[in-house]
Amino acid sequence: MTTKALWYGGDWNPEQWRPEVWHEDVALMRAAGVNLVTVGVFAWSRLEPAPARYTFDWLDEVLDLLHAGGVRAALATPTASPPPWFTHAHPDAMPVTADGTRLHHGSRDTYCAAAPAYRAAARRIAATLAARYAHHPALALWHVHNEYGTTCHCPHAETAFRRWLVDRHGDLDTLNDAWATSFWGQHYADWAHVGAPRATQYLGNPGQLLDFRRFWSDELLSAYTEQRDVLRAANPAVPVTTNYVLGDWVPVDHARWAREVDLVAVDHYPDRVDGGAEEQTALAADLARGWARHGAGRPAPWLLMESAPDRIHTAGRMHTKEPGRMTRHSLAHVARGSAGVMFFQWRAPAGGAEHFHSAVVSHAGPETRVFREATDLGTTLGRLGAVQTGRIEARVAIAYDAASGWALRHPGMPRTGLDHPGEVAAAHRALWQAGVTTDLVVPGDPLDGHRLLVLPALYLASDATAEWVRRHVHAGGHLLVTWLSGVADEHARVRLGGYPGAYRDLLGVRVEEFHPLADDERVPLTSGGFGRIWSETVHLAGAEQVTAYIGGVLDGRPAVTRHRIGDARAWYVSTRPDDDSYRRLLTDAARLAGVVPTCPAAPPGVEAVRRRDGDRSWLFLLNHTDRPQRVPAAGHELLTGEPVDDRVTVPPGGVAVLREPPC
Amino acid sequence: MTTKALWYGGDWNPEQWRPEVWHEDVALMRAAGVNLVTVGVFAWSRLEPAPARYTFDWLDEVLDLLHAGGVRAALATPTASPPPWFTHAHPDAMPVTADGTRLHHGSRDTYCAAAPAYRAAARRIAATLAARYAHHPALALWHVHNEYGTTCHCPHAETAFRRWLVDRHGDLDTLNDAWATSFWGQHYADWAHVGAPRATQYLGNPGQLLDFRRFWSDELLSAYTEQRDVLRAANPAVPVTTNYVLGDWVPVDHARWAREVDLVAVDHYPDRVDGGAEEQTALAADLARGWARHGAGRPAPWLLMESAPDRIHTAGRMHTKEPGRMTRHSLAHVARGSAGVMFFQWRAPAGGAEHFHSAVVSHAGPETRVFREATDLGTTLGRLGAVQTGRIEARVAIAYDAASGWALRHPGMPRTGLDHPGEVAAAHRALWQAGVTTDLVVPGDPLDGHRLLVLPALYLASDATAEWVRRHVHAGGHLLVTWLSGVADEHARVRLGGYPGAYRDLLGVRVEEFHPLADDERVPLTSGGFGRIWSETVHLAGAEQVTAYIGGVLDGRPAVTRHRIGDARAWYVSTRPDDDSYRRLLTDAARLAGVVPTCPAAPPGVEAVRRRDGDRSWLFLLNHTDRPQRVPAAGHELLTGEPVDDRVTVPPGGVAVLREPPC
Amino acid sequence: MTTKALWYGGDWNPEQWRPEVWHEDVALMRAAGVNLVTVGVFAWSRLEPAPARYTFDWLDEVLDLLHAGGVRAALATPTASPPPWFTHAHPDAMPVTADGTRLHHGSRDTYCAAAPAYRAAARRIAATLAARYAHHPALALWHVHNEYGTTCHCPHAETAFRRWLVDRHGDLDTLNDAWATSFWGQHYADWAHVGAPRATQYLGNPGQLLDFRRFWSDELLSAYTEQRDVLRAANPAVPVTTNYVLGDWVPVDHARWAREVDLVAVDHYPDRVDGGAEEQTALAADLARGWARHGAGRPAPWLLMESAPDRIHTAGRMHTKEPGRMTRHSLAHVARGSAGVMFFQWRAPAGGAEHFHSAVVSHAGPETRVFREATDLGTTLGRLGAVQTGRIEARVAIAYDAASGWALRHPGMPRTGLDHPGEVAAAHRALWQAGVTTDLVVPGDPLDGHRLLVLPALYLASDATAEWVRRHVHAGGHLLVTWLSGVADEHARVRLGGYPGAYRDLLGVRVEEFHPLADDERVPLTSGGFGRIWSETVHLAGAEQVTAYIGGVLDGRPAVTRHRIGDARAWYVSTRPDDDSYRRLLTDAARLAGVVPTCPAAPPGVEAVRRRDGDRSWLFLLNHTDRPQRVPAAGHELLTGEPVDDRVTVPPGGVAVLREPPC
Repeated sequence: MTTKALWYGGDWNPEQWRPEVWHEDVALMRAAGVNLVTVGVFAWSRLEPAPARYTFDWLDEVLDLLHAGGVRAALATPTASPPPWFTHAHPDAMPVTADGTRLHHGSRDTYCAAAPAYRAAARRIAATLAARYAHHPALALWHVHNEYGTTCHCPHAETAFRRWLVDRHGDLDTLNDAWATSFWGQHYADWAHVGAPRATQYLGNPGQLLDFRRFWSDELLSAYTEQRDVLRAANPAVPVTTNYVLGDWVPVDHARWAREVDLVAVDHYPDRVDGGAEEQTALAADLARGWARHGAGRPAPWLLMESAPDRIHTAGRMHTKEPGRMTRHSLAHVARGSAGVMFFQWRAPAGGAEHFHSAVVSHAGPETRVFREATDLGTTLGRLGAVQTGRIEARVAIAYDAASGWALRHPGMPRTGLDHPGEVAAAHRALWQAGVTTDLVVPGDPLDGHRLLVLPALYLASDATAEWVRRHVHAGGHLLVTWLSGVADEHARVRLGGYPGAYRDLLGVRVEEFHPLADDERVPLTSGGFGRIWSETVHLAGAEQVTAYIGGVLDGRPAVTRHRIGDARAWYVSTRPDDDSYRRLLTDAARLAGVVPTCPAAPPGVEAVRRRDGDRSWLFLLNHTDRPQRVPAAGHELLTGEPVDDRVTVPPGGVAVLREPPC
Repeated sequence: MTTKALWYGGDWNPEQWRPEVWHEDVALMRAAGVNLVTVGVFAWSRLEPAPARYTFDWLDEVLDLLHAGGVRAALATPTASPPPWFTHAHPDAMPVTADGTRLHHGSRDTYCAAAPAYRAAARRIAATLAARYAHHPALALWHVHNEYGTTCHCPHAETAFRRWLVDRHGDLDTLNDAWATSFWGQHYADWAHVGAPRATQYLGNPGQLLDFRRFWSDELLSAYTEQRDVLRAANPAVPVTTNYVLGDWVPVDHARWAREVDLVAVDHYPDRVDGGAEEQTALAADLARGWARHGAGRPAPWLLMESAPDRIHTAGRMHTKEPGRMTRHSLAHVARGSAGVMFFQWRAPAGGAEHFHSAVVSHAGPETRVFREATDLGTTLGRLGAVQTGRIEARVAIAYDAASGWALRHPGMPRTGLDHPGEVAAAHRALWQAGVTTDLVVPGDPLDGHRLLVLPALYLASDATAEWVRRHVHAGGHLLVTWLSGVADEHARVRLGGYPGAYRDLLGVRVEEFHPLADDERVPLTSGGFGRIWSETVHLAGAEQVTAYIGGVLDGRPAVTRHRIGDARAWYVSTRPDDDSYRRLLTDAARLAGVVPTCPAAPPGVEAVRRRDGDRSWLFLLNHTDRPQRVPAAGHELLTGEPVDDRVTVPPGGVAVLREPPC
Repeated sequence: MTTKALWYGGDWNPEQWRPEVWHEDVALMRAAGVNLVTVGVFAWSRLEPAPARYTFDWLDEVLDLLHAGGVRAALATPTASPPPWFTHAHPDAMPVTADGTRLHHGSRDTYCAAAPAYRAAARRIAATLAARYAHHPALALWHVHNEYGTTCHCPHAETAFRRWLVDRHGDLDTLNDAWATSFWGQHYADWAHVGAPRATQYLGNPGQLLDFRRFWSDELLSAYTEQRDVLRAANPAVPVTTNYVLGDWVPVDHARWAREVDLVAVDHYPDRVDGGAEEQTALAADLARGWARHGAGRPAPWLLMESAPDRIHTAGRMHTKEPGRMTRHSLAHVARGSAGVMFFQWRAPAGGAEHFHSAVVSHAGPETRVFREATDLGTTLGRLGAVQTGRIEARVAIAYDAASGWALRHPGMPRTGLDHPGEVAAAHRALWQAGVTTDLVVPGDPLDGHRLLVLPALYLASDATAEWVRRHVHAGGHLLVTWLSGVADEHARVRLGGYPGAYRDLLGVRVEEFHPLADDERVPLTSGGFGRIWSETVHLAGAEQVTAYIGGVLDGRPAVTRHRIGDARAWYVSTRPDDDSYRRLLTDAARLAGVVPTCPAAPPGVEAVRRRDGDRSWLFLLNHTDRPQRVPAAGHELLTGEPVDDRVTVPPGGVAVLREPPC
């Protein structure tokens, strides 16, 4: 899908409103510069109120109205919310939790995606929509389902899981070995005895739990591809996608999905208020770009499919975004590769479970600050279409792996709260604060342009992953590995002989013992900072000591080490440094690898991202401070339309985008 | 039910003791001045040990013994605890939680009140009791069941809920509209598909959840009225009631029940130790008086049916009441309209789940401080019978609405912890600390004598409620509305166009955005204090600004406003002021409305309540401090029997009750 | 079972490894001085992969290999982990939680021990093992099952519970009386109506809950004795035991089990890091010794069957033991009577739920600190075999009673967090810190050598227990009773007339009211310290006041009292003193009783325990500080082999064991 203009819009739910409001909405969209709206998510009960009885008239009218108004549609299949009649007819298709609780209609996403009845009904409504609208002129994109992630432990799920396990492991001996069933006498002698990880007496089997997560990712993916194939068959010209859910909840392995979508689309709702939302935005965008690249096999656009116009949903409350913050978040996504900015949702509903969710047209109507800012943002986006050909420049890669995150959650780990995505975020934050743009990569991805590869608590390492890392280093790439990376294989079995088994030789260290720290514990380091969460007995085996622990049983022993391999360096970090130390450490590692910040002269709090297309380049400057900031730069500022000679002043909380002169 | 003497007594459970103890108990009751005991609560398994096999001999003897001792009986129907044989015969009548857990015999209140078998068995035991005792000379009052509140999600409950919904909404279109089922595709096309709000995948439907609370309140009420009608038919002269449970758990809409009882009866167990118990006591008594007035359509007595003689059950432990505190709490209830003082329970049992519950005759027997105080209290109450004709004077009304409390608990609200009863308590506390007595009213109640109406987070407003408030103001009544009041209609659908939809015009404001605060956040106000929990972008639309926010995005914007309508003022308070500011604010609003404290010269910590009957009046003075307090007053002090010329000294933690001279 | 050498070894799971590793393991065992390994725990699915199909070849080889290597085997029955085929064939034998959740295969211990199918399968595998190995020369000990403790609420459990209740109570009247079913109308008229304490509406019945705990202890015990009898029949010469689980989870009454095992065996995993682990170790060892004495009817050895070589599993993380700490913990057990030191587990597995559990051969292999320390410990143990004939000297007895702990957990108690085992630990700690060695006794045990008996919150007292205490005092024994002791009878029914009913006369006090304290509350005492958790209104009735409360409602009233009975003293402590005061108080009570510390001159932080056999004695000195400590002592130090004239220097964190000269 290519387009000259950036996409701009959001989820529109005309089924919640009288037709008079539809006309007002389309007029407001035009006023705000909107050119794409998502329609039909959750509308199943309005499209098929009884089995195979369809009511498409309202959707016909809506799409025609959009077309007349010059707004394109991302038309959704409504399968994330089966109608009440479906629930009633198929109680066996309702999901079951690990403890056996059968869930019921009353919210959304209440189905077992492994239940044949659900799959059949989903295919049917998708096919019926495709037949009717695949050639509608308003249609720009198919949006399948919504935020896939619902799992289940019912007999249907169990059957599908068993089938998946046969595919994965081939025979029972292999499965028994992968799951280490010799521990606690769990050896399976018959496939029929293998089940879902239901509530059990004590700690569950790590291999079984991990495979169940993988199974559900694949099972949901097959539910998606089934629909995609139906839609694609109706009109191969229309791209198909589904929106990924981002955040602490990682229900599927989004990287595996990236190859099956025509455009990676993500929903992003940061949940931290003070500064944190900006870090989270940068990370989310980099993840999405990484998945898009992984899926396409080359740099590719992606789309911010949902974001909140005026609120940050943080623990226990909704924080109202300060003036300008919505625009800053939106342009941060564009800076990092998004093909547009989409909001959830267009108009705030009076009722329903999310009546207080953020909206462009709020309960108070369009005469509001949020709508005025949305209109201004529409104007701004209209000026930035050209940046889309620019490729984001990044020389550092951070590896992210959903399965490593899942494996570290096992309650038998040496510490609770171990968190691969959290460690990815910490490494990303350190580099973000240092002004270094990073790519997020999937183990196995090409690393041609990356001078430094960071593995943050990348717990699982298959032999292929270990080899991928080895090749990077032997090709001269630098490497920085943190604690718990490469400790286990892809089945979460510990690699023996000293940690971290997969990278021990490459790092020139041998870790003998873990020393997990208490939540409030801080271990001083010779570098001046301190370590948290974790520490280790590290033996040097070729590496040199960079930083040592101070005090306690590890006094004087290595905390951070560095191993020279040819011209490359392989760092090992055996604790989590405090934020400041971590930023310095990663800055050092990057500099040794020849990587410098995007805009070295940018003042603290100003985020700089450059997109480059041949000799054309665009510099995004996002001022996260509450004071105006002067940044050395030159070119043409696209928001104000003014030329910049040697420095640009970015207003408090504001953004500048410079079309730079050719170098 | 009228009586010369105040009632005094408590729950007596002779079925737990040998007959020798019964005789000792009645002798102790006489010694303590007890004239009413509740008998038979939970005694079902001793009255009907097998289906339709009755053992009334012991109860015959007990009632005769009471009668001989001059103690009247509040005879209970035992339906709050079905016998084991009932459970065994009717497993389908055991309650089911939202997640499908079927509960079992082993505690109390384990039944589904919508199960036909339960209802039939309850009617039968009530009818059998009525037939035998309706004309017993000891019988003063029927006490139906105990603390109604048990709910259920079983098929019986679902069927009854569906029937109730048909009654309420008439047709499915109306229900779909009220519940906003167009959100998340929950549109119902068949009544058979509408169910109880069972465990579901994510946030439930707010309308469904709210209606389910209302349904259960009504279903339990019908369980009560069925029994009441049976009892009343047997002897129309005997009043019938049931005891309301008070506290954080609000299972039913007690106001709706008030019209169906002959005497509002409440159980009150404060749960705060330091000072808080006294605030809670005043509020509980004012709520009970409000319900009694609502039910009778005029000021009416009510009864404190249960209270704890010597303990405050606070979080995690039982606090032993300090000497004198029991008496002070008891007289606080009498001051605010209770027709007596009843305790749970008379004699502490050796076993059972509540063996450490507070009792008049404790495990240590009658040679105890608590029994001595109870005996003294009996003497005191004997001197206060005349106060009962006095009507409590209050010119301020605070609106309380169970459904608003339920609606604000929905997890989709902009903040967790939103709490209508808590906000009622905060407003009540502010006025209580200011010495101003308040009535608690139900929306729609007559407001003839009230100069100021306070709506504290009264979230729901039907058109009728909005009109009730409008009429009050246009008749010259003052109004003070706090944040989140009138935001939604009676179905919890947001009223659009700017908050608070129901009162926007009356208040002369338009709220554009909410800014919920973090738990530890404090926003300074120009009045000198600070706001907590909540803040808002308030636009003046006729009102004047009284107080503004300081700092942050709301700097300089209105926090408290005032709108003049004729001679009246309509205040809007967009945050929760700190306790001190709130007291000053409400004192100002009351004063402008012409309301002054009951006893302006009373020192801090002395609570003053006046009851007036024509030109006769009684002034209750409760000293909550640990020092003697001198209060300007005149009349005849009823506890000591001494005349008071110009000031009375109330002992530390003590009480004085003055029969005042005619004004 | 007697042996010259101390046992040394741990759990070995060859079924998790290739045969090459078995040979390496046996070689390492020999190097480390290991002479006993536990084999076969959880191996059911490898021994009987399908019903009645056995694969013993690997175990044959393993036992022969051990025998050849001079290592004995504690051969386990594998019944703690039924194979998947069992689960599949007998879904009704899977356990059910109180709320009705049926658990599934996937961990360990997932069975209902009351299910006939489980019991039959368990007997069968035990008999098959017995038939094959009962005369194997490597066999030293049968180890039945593992850490019995799994309970269930299924119909099988309910049937067995009902049968047990008939045995215990005889008739329904007795049960109704014991359970006080007259409260809340729970009176049973038919045995068929009596069930397990399933999830119910509100507080459960204390008698029912307590009996359910007792039932499960007895039901599991019968599961054990069934297996024991099968094993014993095959070769009466081989002792049989099972390993007790210790810690906060007390699933069974270990004292009752002691009579049915040939050797009390305990698993001990302390969970406190700083110093606490050492206190916990001393208490665990004293408990085990007490159970062994109770079971044998005389002092008897016991065995530390599991401990962690290098980790302390504390809240949320695994703490790595500091160098030397493993040895210190191990020798603390030997000092207090253990017949050896066993670890879980020998070799750390690569997978399974406990892949990060502590091990002797860690993931990093044998070239590690932990293995070196284990080898040194083997050498040390080899020098200490002679100490086994020495009897631990203790003149103070502390009573411990599992049922009192269970009863105090009832949510209807006057305070949450009441904890009999915690109070036992507090009294034990106070005496441990004072250098006084204590015996833990079961109510009813002979108290011939004990000068002081301590009852710490020993809530339940049958008439027999009360008489046991009375006889101790009247025989001249001193007594110290703390709050909540003797308040209830064996059915958890309160003894009336004033607390503590069972000991009121003996103590010369009458407690009228409880005053539970808030978690952060401290009540000053005239002794200079303060009380926590609890306080009471104590009336003197023969006793003298030792310490009084200061301030509050109890100001000036007795906190600690002392009653003279002949030459003995009976102390009552009505609050929990702070640690320092408690240590002084118990030191005073011990001194009055003629008990002095084991080694009065030992510096703080050095634990001293003496074992004596006639005129031979051994003094264990454990230095818990991080500095060398000089201790006055004489004899022959067994670890270094050096003579000691008048003082020995114990290294930081180290241990000395002196063979003392005859007195």
